[in-house]
Amino acid sequence: MSAFPKIPVFLKPFMPAVVAVIGSIPWLRTKASIWAINRAAYSTTLRPRALTLLADYTSWRSLTDREYSARHLPPATPEYMAGLPSESEVLKLFRRTEEKKDTDTSVMFMFFAQWFVDSFLATDWDDFRKNHSNHEIDLCEIYGLTKAQTDMLRAKHGGRLKVQNINGEEYPPYYFESKDGTLVVKQEFDGLHDAATMTRILTGVSYDRKKKFYAVGLAHGNSTLGNSIMNIVWVREHNRLAAMLENKHPGWDDERLFETARNIAIVLAIKLAVEEYIKHIAPWDFPIKMVDLIADRERWNRTNWCAVEFNLLYRWHMLAPETVGAGDTALTPADFLTNNKLIEDEGIESLIAWCSRARAGKIGLFNTPTYLMIPSPALNGFSVESRTIRLSREAQLKSYNDYRVAYSMKPFTKWEQLNKDPKVIEPLKELYGDIKNLEWYVGIFAEDYPRELMMGDLLTTMVANDAFTQLLSNPLLAANVYNKDTFTQEGLDEIENTKCFADIVKRNAKDPSRVYCNFAVR
Amino acid sequence: MSAFPKIPVFLKPFMPAVVAVIGSIPWLRTKASIWAINRAAYSTTLRPRALTLLADYTSWRSLTDREYSARHLPPATPEYMAGLPSESEVLKLFRRTEEKKDTDTSVMFMFFAQWFVDSFLATDWDDFRKNHSNHEIDLCEIYGLTKAQTDMLRAKHGGRLKVQNINGEEYPPYYFESKDGTLVVKQEFDGLHDAATMTRILTGVSYDRKKKFYAVGLAHGNSTLGNSIMNIVWVREHNRLAAMLENKHPGWDDERLFETARNIAIVLAIKLAVEEYIKHIAPWDFPIKMVDLIADRERWNRTNWCAVEFNLLYRWHMLAPETVGAGDTALTPADFLTNNKLIEDEGIESLIAWCSRARAGKIGLFNTPTYLMIPSPALNGFSVESRTIRLSREAQLKSYNDYRVAYSMKPFTKWEQLNKDPKVIEPLKELYGDIKNLEWYVGIFAEDYPRELMMGDLLTTMVANDAFTQLLSNPLLAANVYNKDTFTQEGLDEIENTKCFADIVKRNAKDPSRVYCNFAVR
Repeated sequence: MSAFPKIPVFLKPFMPAVVAVIGSIPWLRTKASIWAINRAAYSTTLRPRALTLLADYTSWRSLTDREYSARHLPPATPEYMAGLPSESEVLKLFRRTEEKKDTDTSVMFMFFAQWFVDSFLATDWDDFRKNHSNHEIDLCEIYGLTKAQTDMLRAKHGGRLKVQNINGEEYPPYYFESKDGTLVVKQEFDGLHDAATMTRILTGVSYDRKKKFYAVGLAHGNSTLGNSIMNIVWVREHNRLAAMLENKHPGWDDERLFETARNIAIVLAIKLAVEEYIKHIAPWDFPIKMVDLIADRERWNRTNWCAVEFNLLYRWHMLAPETVGAGDTALTPADFLTNNKLIEDEGIESLIAWCSRARAGKIGLFNTPTYLMIPSPALNGFSVESRTIRLSREAQLKSYNDYRVAYSMKPFTKWEQLNKDPKVIEPLKELYGDIKNLEWYVGIFAEDYPRELMMGDLLTTMVANDAFTQLLSNPLLAANVYNKDTFTQEGLDEIENTKCFADIVKRNAKDPSRVYCNFAVR
Repeated sequence: MSAFPKIPVFLKPFMPAVVAVIGSIPWLRTKASIWAINRAAYSTTLRPRALTLLADYTSWRSLTDREYSARHLPPATPEYMAGLPSESEVLKLFRRTEEKKDTDTSVMFMFFAQWFVDSFLATDWDDFRKNHSNHEIDLCEIYGLTKAQTDMLRAKHGGRLKVQNINGEEYPPYYFESKDGTLVVKQEFDGLHDAATMTRILTGVSYDRKKKFYAVGLAHGNSTLGNSIMNIVWVREHNRLAAMLENKHPGWDDERLFETARNIAIVLAIKLAVEEYIKHIAPWDFPIKMVDLIADRERWNRTNWCAVEFNLLYRWHMLAPETVGAGDTALTPADFLTNNKLIEDEGIESLIAWCSRARAGKIGLFNTPTYLMIPSPALNGFSVESRTIRLSREAQLKSYNDYRVAYSMKPFTKWEQLNKDPKVIEPLKELYGDIKNLEWYVGIFAEDYPRELMMGDLLTTMVANDAFTQLLSNPLLAANVYNKDTFTQEGLDEIENTKCFADIVKRNAKDPSRVYCNFAVR
């Protein structure tokens, strides 16, 4: 059972119309969304899982200590692992040969994905078994993961987050200050991020760029244009919500204003993730709805605990183009990595528009960009892609076919079932021989898929399973919680009236009419 | 909807036979247990709850920080709180006037209850809003709450816990050692318990008794004969299980032996809590079964989070008799509080037999024993009972009738619906006037109940709701986990073959034939 049923080819031309009808009838949209969500959520066994990466047997600690990533399936046998091709051979399967672009996905989608996913899939640098997130959609990108971090980021008046004013607009404050010509962490942000992590992240970053590092919730929150843009927008949105609440509830203290604005902001993030981001991934932009309270009725509503498979399958490195846009104004990696100066010079609106018109890469083998294949001292000599392959080996994941079976699909017996393109399957045949030996991390990116999808069958199903059960089991969406006591009526109205990320960008922009923001390239 | 349906009086004489039939037919017993468990579990709204004691509004922290006790209902209005009688007037309602004994409950039941409940209802001494347990049945009584504590208690060979040999039997090691005539915490247990808590607990405890303090998982693990007896039995059982596993799996290391023995021990504790302890509370000893995997199918399976109401309603101080047993050999509070020497002198079997033949007090008003009504410096000048009343006021709990409604019961309009005994209701009428003003903590203990029950309707329903949803959502009972990979086949057999606490005492006793252990006085 894959996440989406097979549509016969002769019906496909009618699907955009069918989907449009579903989207235009509210009760039908809700019913269809519940069906789609549950189809994905029940495609495999439910949490709690027996094993995490702590050990290969079940213990009280493995069942309760969420520092360690969960795992969907137990480890493969040593025999299976020993028979796999070398990591360097596998790495070659990912190297971009000619740049392939996605049908309609924008670089803005890619930046949203990175910013969003980094909040709950935070692999520890020194112990790959650990995920130091809270496993929830909690907007830790702007609030931090702990109360101590949140306190450092709060203005402590009017429920606001700390901001600075640049060109008449709100930006997060700088993290460093200059002392005797060197940059030191501001006293107020002492302890916000782990020093060793910061050293690693700042390897090779120039003084001028370092100077403009923003103090935000996560250490890598400044690592790309996208992360910084998203943080700027969400900090502004938080402060806008707090101001709105302060206006309506003059008796509320800083604490209540802050917490209520945060409640609203988190649900906005979940809503956009479902109704814009997942919708874009779904075929024909199926208008999936954030069905609040759905989780209350379902058996899949269990404590969130991100699995190592979720962590690995979400590494959509291929989305990254060689340059953002084309021509003289194309942004190179040197432009879009750790570069807040560019944002302050150009303004976020112009960059968002640029990224919304630039196409992202196509997900699949042979399409990881060059700069994610270069070994780096900051990654202990790995490249982004080779580190990922290493993690999949260290986690001793079972085969691609084993995962198909675990997600209620038939295992493949012939390479042609996976992909008909000889350029994809010939190298795989050579490396793995029989398709039953194909390793999972390669298999999910080797799957062929039709134009209306963004990735293959097993990858779509697995990401939908983990994403829906994580997003919709958020405590803010529970029956006792999702009401105006938690959000205020104004807050519920904000949630209702926000349809896409562009809405949020617009209401926090100097000139909303200039905003163009889209996850799809039209 | 109360936890148990009303049985017409004319049918009651047949109920023991009906219950016996249900108990003798396995599928019927399972069906009836599922029915009873779900009836209690769905009697009120499900977790997650909107509020904890952190604040009177919902915040991300209140939804995720389990340091703070949850609450079933939001706080009462200031007007309601202001209209309540003084705490000292309310305290008088609890003072034992003449000692009333329960129909058939033994002191052994009471000791099990105390030992069991202290593991998940651990109110912080300085901030009553906090519960520093893990909210789970985790046998922290013998394993501690954190990995650091567990490590101190482990022998680190053969999966065993540390023990000492006294008279040829295993006991937990002593916590203190004598240095220059004073008792100091042994180096190996440095940091096992919070120093301030230990000072409080040891106030007024003699050198001789302090010397015999056992190093166990919780600071108050030595506070009564019952706590010490239970810890001794469970430490022996853990080591017996570890030895059994070591014998069957000679290749396993200390870690795996320890963790697997712990998995088995925790499920044994849950099984006994359901099948012996809750069974005793249920009418006619309804043979309730620990239905493994039930939680996987149910919507009430949500992250455990103990509520302040659960914490307060479980203070069955009235179970405590003035003395355990009668005659010259009766044990006075001075005998049964913090007295491990008595245990080592008498041996646990003789004390267990004594406690199994002594009747516990009857739950209700006017029956809290004298020694729990005496203000103590260790309780900041409160008595055990007056501190409880203070906590219920600090939590600003709504009225008894509000809780009836929240648990799907009709509110009472007349005092006689609560209790027909004028000795109970006259003082209540005087203090509260209208029954709608009756406060919850008093109301649940003022309820009348028939012989076949141990407590009133709302109290039974509330305790059943919290207990079942907590016990059975334990991760060890989940579909992916409850199997021989987690427990081994021998472990599953141990679980299957253990029917009552006496079984565990017997298999760890020098002379099993001498063991008499029972939660009911026959």
